[in-house]
Amino acid sequence: MRAVLHVCTTCRGMAPVDDPDAPRPGSVLHHALQAAAPEGVQIRAVECLSACSQGCSVALSAPGKWSYVYGRLTPDDAADILAGATAYAGTPDGIVPWRERPTIFRKQSLARIPPQIPAQE
Amino acid sequence: MRAVLHVCTTCRGMAPVDDPDAPRPGSVLHHALQAAAPEGVQIRAVECLSACSQGCSVALSAPGKWSYVYGRLTPDDAADILAGATAYAGTPDGIVPWRERPTIFRKQSLARIPPQIPAQE
Repeated sequence: MRAVLHVCTTCRGMAPVDDPDAPRPGSVLHHALQAAAPEGVQIRAVECLSACSQGCSVALSAPGKWSYVYGRLTPDDAADILAGATAYAGTPDGIVPWRERPTIFRKQSLARIPPQIPAQE
Repeated sequence: MRAVLHVCTTCRGMAPVDDPDAPRPGSVLHHALQAAAPEGVQIRAVECLSACSQGCSVALSAPGKWSYVYGRLTPDDAADILAGATAYAGTPDGIVPWRERPTIFRKQSLARIPPQIPAQE
């Protein structure tokens, strides 16, 4: 039931940045998630989830499950992201009951993709 | 190298609809894609890709490849979507060279998700 949480480290935040040399919000978020990774959720850095206009973004996936992409996130959302990822890891199909999803997962979904079932000939 | 093109049949278009009983644009797009499905691309209807504010949406996936979700589409985009899906099906990793992507795939990506590699214990 393990899940992979991909975290875009090149994401910029939604707000303009004063210091162009400061670490990107996506990288800051990745460090916050990595530091508190719960059992059952593997954190993986990735460069670009092609959701570049949507602040920080992450993608949850696991074999046989629906995949989800969330956006408009900030490093302050790390705890909620990990709570949602843990709930996801505990499902057989990736679909967490609506009321058990963190608010950011209810309101900031960018897209979801059905489980991978190989194409039939 | 086959790919699966998931098409959301419950998607509404970006524009207001005069007739609430008319087929949804997502369903119209699905029929157009199904009718012209090229070899190597399997079309699958799906209810909701969680990109409901983005007009018609589709998702491309295949085992071992990056998955992509595109939005702000209309039934008129069917031919371009199939051209892009065919190019995707022909790649080993799902990454089509930028210049070979249809304009809608260059400009209307909602998100992409890395290939599924099972989480390590």
